[in-house]
Amino acid sequence: MSAPRAISRLATRALSRRTITHSVRRTALPTTSASASAWAATQLNSVRHGSTLPPRSAEFTKPTEEHIKDLRAILSAPTSLLSTLDGTATEDELASFNDDWMNKYHGKGPIVVKPRTTEEVSKVMKYCYDKGLAVVPQGGNTGLVGGSNPVHDEIILCLSNLNQIRSFDQVSGVLVADAGVVLEAADHHLAEKGFIFPLDLGAKGSCHIGGNVATNAGGLRLLRYGSLHGSVLGLEVVLPDGTIWEGLSKLRKDNTGFDIKQLFIGSEGTIGIITAISILCPRRPSAMNVAVFSLPSYEAVQKVFGEAKAHLGEILSAFEFFDKQSYALVKKHQEENGGERKVFETEGDFYCLIETGGSNAEHDEAKLTGLLEHLMENEMVLDGVLAQDSTQFQSLWSLRELVPESAGKAGSVYKYDVSVPVGKMYSLVEKMRTKLREGGVLEGDGKAEGPIRAVAGYGHMGDGNLHINIVANKYTDEVEKIIEPYIYEIVSENEGSISAEHGLGVMKAPYIGYSKNETSIELMKKVKHLFDPKGLLNPYKYIV
Amino acid sequence: MSAPRAISRLATRALSRRTITHSVRRTALPTTSASASAWAATQLNSVRHGSTLPPRSAEFTKPTEEHIKDLRAILSAPTSLLSTLDGTATEDELASFNDDWMNKYHGKGPIVVKPRTTEEVSKVMKYCYDKGLAVVPQGGNTGLVGGSNPVHDEIILCLSNLNQIRSFDQVSGVLVADAGVVLEAADHHLAEKGFIFPLDLGAKGSCHIGGNVATNAGGLRLLRYGSLHGSVLGLEVVLPDGTIWEGLSKLRKDNTGFDIKQLFIGSEGTIGIITAISILCPRRPSAMNVAVFSLPSYEAVQKVFGEAKAHLGEILSAFEFFDKQSYALVKKHQEENGGERKVFETEGDFYCLIETGGSNAEHDEAKLTGLLEHLMENEMVLDGVLAQDSTQFQSLWSLRELVPESAGKAGSVYKYDVSVPVGKMYSLVEKMRTKLREGGVLEGDGKAEGPIRAVAGYGHMGDGNLHINIVANKYTDEVEKIIEPYIYEIVSENEGSISAEHGLGVMKAPYIGYSKNETSIELMKKVKHLFDPKGLLNPYKYIV
Repeated sequence: MSAPRAISRLATRALSRRTITHSVRRTALPTTSASASAWAATQLNSVRHGSTLPPRSAEFTKPTEEHIKDLRAILSAPTSLLSTLDGTATEDELASFNDDWMNKYHGKGPIVVKPRTTEEVSKVMKYCYDKGLAVVPQGGNTGLVGGSNPVHDEIILCLSNLNQIRSFDQVSGVLVADAGVVLEAADHHLAEKGFIFPLDLGAKGSCHIGGNVATNAGGLRLLRYGSLHGSVLGLEVVLPDGTIWEGLSKLRKDNTGFDIKQLFIGSEGTIGIITAISILCPRRPSAMNVAVFSLPSYEAVQKVFGEAKAHLGEILSAFEFFDKQSYALVKKHQEENGGERKVFETEGDFYCLIETGGSNAEHDEAKLTGLLEHLMENEMVLDGVLAQDSTQFQSLWSLRELVPESAGKAGSVYKYDVSVPVGKMYSLVEKMRTKLREGGVLEGDGKAEGPIRAVAGYGHMGDGNLHINIVANKYTDEVEKIIEPYIYEIVSENEGSISAEHGLGVMKAPYIGYSKNETSIELMKKVKHLFDPKGLLNPYKYIV
Repeated sequence: MSAPRAISRLATRALSRRTITHSVRRTALPTTSASASAWAATQLNSVRHGSTLPPRSAEFTKPTEEHIKDLRAILSAPTSLLSTLDGTATEDELASFNDDWMNKYHGKGPIVVKPRTTEEVSKVMKYCYDKGLAVVPQGGNTGLVGGSNPVHDEIILCLSNLNQIRSFDQVSGVLVADAGVVLEAADHHLAEKGFIFPLDLGAKGSCHIGGNVATNAGGLRLLRYGSLHGSVLGLEVVLPDGTIWEGLSKLRKDNTGFDIKQLFIGSEGTIGIITAISILCPRRPSAMNVAVFSLPSYEAVQKVFGEAKAHLGEILSAFEFFDKQSYALVKKHQEENGGERKVFETEGDFYCLIETGGSNAEHDEAKLTGLLEHLMENEMVLDGVLAQDSTQFQSLWSLRELVPESAGKAGSVYKYDVSVPVGKMYSLVEKMRTKLREGGVLEGDGKAEGPIRAVAGYGHMGDGNLHINIVANKYTDEVEKIIEPYIYEIVSENEGSISAEHGLGVMKAPYIGYSKNETSIELMKKVKHLFDPKGLLNPYKYIV
């Protein structure tokens, strides 16, 4: 394989694709930076806040064998109900429903119900509503904030048996499918027809499309395909009292009253159970490219982001950035695994990854060449590499995707996933470094073995979604008190969000005040009460 | 100028742009088919339903001079209140607020308030709420369903003095602006910076961006830029009781609770007054192309739509269709104005217009050539023309945009604007023809001078938005009874919407049941009551 060359030489002619000589192992799960960072963030928070979970509400009825008997009469198949109360399941067998996939949140739900139809969901909900039984809806159980597990003894209503594609219209691109269809299965179905699901996630092999909508999942394609609030056309929802709301429109334009479905998108299962979705799917890009650059400053990253949008226009599908601290963690991790090779002749304080997806490979490459030449002529980047094939495509992505895993290997990581205006994004990392330096805990500031080894910043530039990783020798109260609530304060000062894409769940419910004002929270409480006056659906979470 | 050539000859080589020899006058207002069709539909309905407007509610306080005195004390400028009650305005001077721009809906509001700040809006609303005074918010007053005019003596709260661009971020593309900014002004502001407002409308020279959001305007760019539910990032809203809801987020990702702002998008001023918006704006395309084709069947139009999406991918920005009846009306209209020239060597039963917008003219043209060659090789189109410059670009658009005006010149037109799945779209036109034929009123079925001269179908293929124009000698009860409620029934049978993009207002409020089920309407009523328990905001409309 040829050695990497500086992009300045590349830019003198049309792009000759170069071999990427370094070898980067792709992490199995999570495969996206977003889910990866949240994975650790959740780990951390569950340790810290596990003891502060709200107590069981005395208003909810305690599940009994009598309820099991009644519920069995509602369900069409004996295997649709599992319970430790009647001996049809052991605690171990219910563990995969009670525990989240990171094994950080542990519910005590004694009953799992897996209805096979929307009507069964309706009957179960009506029964629970009448009896005062609390219910937690569960999709693929891949959430990152403890939103899909019971907190106490809520009945677990699992959607996995609602797993059929209902229809796909080749002309309009509208897919209608049950909520329990796995995201990857939906995307494979679409791929065969030349379409793509307008959402991609690390957990796509397990997560349900209904859960994606219920949590307003963001993921890797948001820059290109926008939010689910724009692409979801309709929903079928079972309301807390069992009423089926049939809002499964397949229309792009429909201005006949309040757009009720929008309330369920991102409601995290607190006001209704999504049983089916209707979603607009774009054509699948036939060409994909990825390039990574080293840059001198965050200002340069912002400028390159602007240039990328200008030159690549409609084919820009991702713009990610990471700082030298992030890259140092990745290089160290690669060294330790024997896979490190020199990627950039000139390294920088910052790096960015640009992905394109279009319908014509030749045109896309020409646009990318135009961008590279412009960047070099104006000395906006220091160096760059471009993927030559799908393996290299994955390898270059891994430079970015390995950051969270590499940080985890380097120590105990305080991780945060926030959203702030792009222009202010990196200042949060700098402020955090200053704060830690002032606290005397940042290595290299007089302490040879300070507890904090690195503060790394990276994220989805295109979405204003920043990840901060603070790598420490170990978790300590001293360090934690320096970081929190300071991190939430500076997010709030910058008009940011404490949860960019992972939701509130049980983990961040107490902190909503850092991102939403009193009027907003008051309105949300009213909406919750309007739909679920008994507060039976997914209690103890979200808006509390 | 060269004569038009058949596209079959064109397709044998790279596209040589052809001169469009026909001359089509562009209509001044409305410039889009959507607004044009609704214009006549509104005319029609106001005639028919004008007498069925709901009576004045006795629960609302009657505005008096005492209220004027109090409101003046709230407002910073004397010119911010006009009223016939205290002689500061004549009825004529208030006519532009009481009447809609088509002069079809006529309110009797004696007071117009034009606050200069959000705080003033808040104070006015609090005062009206406390006093039980009904209020109608008004933007550019360009609505098509009587939504922005008073029905009786509601106080008119005009947003035109809230007209400042607050900020624009070149990096993120996020625009924050007062609700009263005119759409065209916002777009001009963005154009200077290389960006585009993700919405375009015929009324853009008058309509307000706040009103656009309040009515969830669709327009010409929806196929490309999606719905406002996806592009609006935040709102500032004054609630019925005067509370200011500051939800003016500039974040693309923010999963911290219910997305409350979504309820206001398309709420038609019934639950709050939008005073500012935050919206994500894409880069402005640097290249634009338009082509029009003749086709043998609606099936062919659907196939070409699929091929256009496949070949043009990310640069497809509009796909419109019209039938031979529509084109005949346009040709007749052009003949009468001396501007008709032969456009197609081979005419067809159907026509479609394809527009592209991209960041590279050469690439776009190559993609379009690829599409044309494919269409010709597979004999999917009969003929086609491609615009060569901006004048021809407008001329080709006019073939489609002149349909509603041409229909209006041909007779009294029953017009409908509906949304149905693309595959079922044209069957509605055919069903309507059959119905009229069975009723013995369609010309050419034995009656030499039947009252119905033509049934024309056209619309936004990409959005599933169909316009049906039924051209009659004159409006008669006999014809109307054949058309209605049949048209709503067949829309309903096809899971369609009786209002694709123009909203309900006062015109379609009674008909919502054709598009929304009882559960939906019940939820909507609850939402309305939650935000506006006194029902003071924009009464008699929307959800009644």
